[in-house]
Amino acid sequence: MQNSNLPDEEQKFRVRKLEVSDYGKGFIELLQQLSVCDSVSNKEFGDRFGELSSLGDDHVVCVIEDELSGKIIATGSIFIEKKFLRNCGKVGHIEDVVVDSTVRGKQLGKKLIKFLTDHAHSMGCYKVILDCSHENRVFYEKCGFKQKEVQMVMYFV
Amino acid sequence: MQNSNLPDEEQKFRVRKLEVSDYGKGFIELLQQLSVCDSVSNKEFGDRFGELSSLGDDHVVCVIEDELSGKIIATGSIFIEKKFLRNCGKVGHIEDVVVDSTVRGKQLGKKLIKFLTDHAHSMGCYKVILDCSHENRVFYEKCGFKQKEVQMVMYFV
Repeated sequence: MQNSNLPDEEQKFRVRKLEVSDYGKGFIELLQQLSVCDSVSNKEFGDRFGELSSLGDDHVVCVIEDELSGKIIATGSIFIEKKFLRNCGKVGHIEDVVVDSTVRGKQLGKKLIKFLTDHAHSMGCYKVILDCSHENRVFYEKCGFKQKEVQMVMYFV
Repeated sequence: MQNSNLPDEEQKFRVRKLEVSDYGKGFIELLQQLSVCDSVSNKEFGDRFGELSSLGDDHVVCVIEDELSGKIIATGSIFIEKKFLRNCGKVGHIEDVVVDSTVRGKQLGKKLIKFLTDHAHSMGCYKVILDCSHENRVFYEKCGFKQKEVQMVMYFV
């Protein structure tokens, strides 16, 4: 009975928006599992938090906090691009999704993605997109995504 | 001597930022060559133009106008995503690049992409990304991009 304790887990692993106090709950350390992210001071975090907050619902960072440990164990973000195309349509861009390596297999990634795609839908987006590795494609297919184009990149540093 | 008239062409095909009067110069009709974009009224265009302008350098739409015909013949856009990752880094996202089908082969696409990547660089982005079809990959490689991940999409409409 894998899901017999689902209501408790639902409560325990609730998705919510990032708060400024999450800096002290391991948010940056969690991002380090995804990519390079060293030396972010509390002030730098607060400044960027303020910049993103000023965008309101057009840029949302969500997290899951383990209420037992008080640690941030999953995060993902979405921003809403406003276009002229598609009759002045909007597109949600999902970025920086990571689940703590010690708590994988609990469907936390799926919960995050549902939160983010629901947000895009509620904002009136006609689609939501993301880029991922070949290995993670199957996960996103299970979340309802389909493979479409190829991502190209140019690095400056 | 393919490039003997380059200075004239340079002048004639200058990249500049979108202006509100470009609605009357075929901007929407150009986008229709890329994807679905019908029934954008002058007011809807103006409203979206205002929303994007309020983002300043964080969202730029550029165009090339054919000064002889007074028509917009190429466009592309970029927005700057602000992250916590990469030490509160920034990423440029290029979108909606299209060159009028009647003026292809004049390197206008390359000029647009250079304008957009230069903008990302000047904004302090550590990288610039875009999604494209397999067929357009070679064009972007010539512009200095490398293939990286796969794009996944979920449509709502």
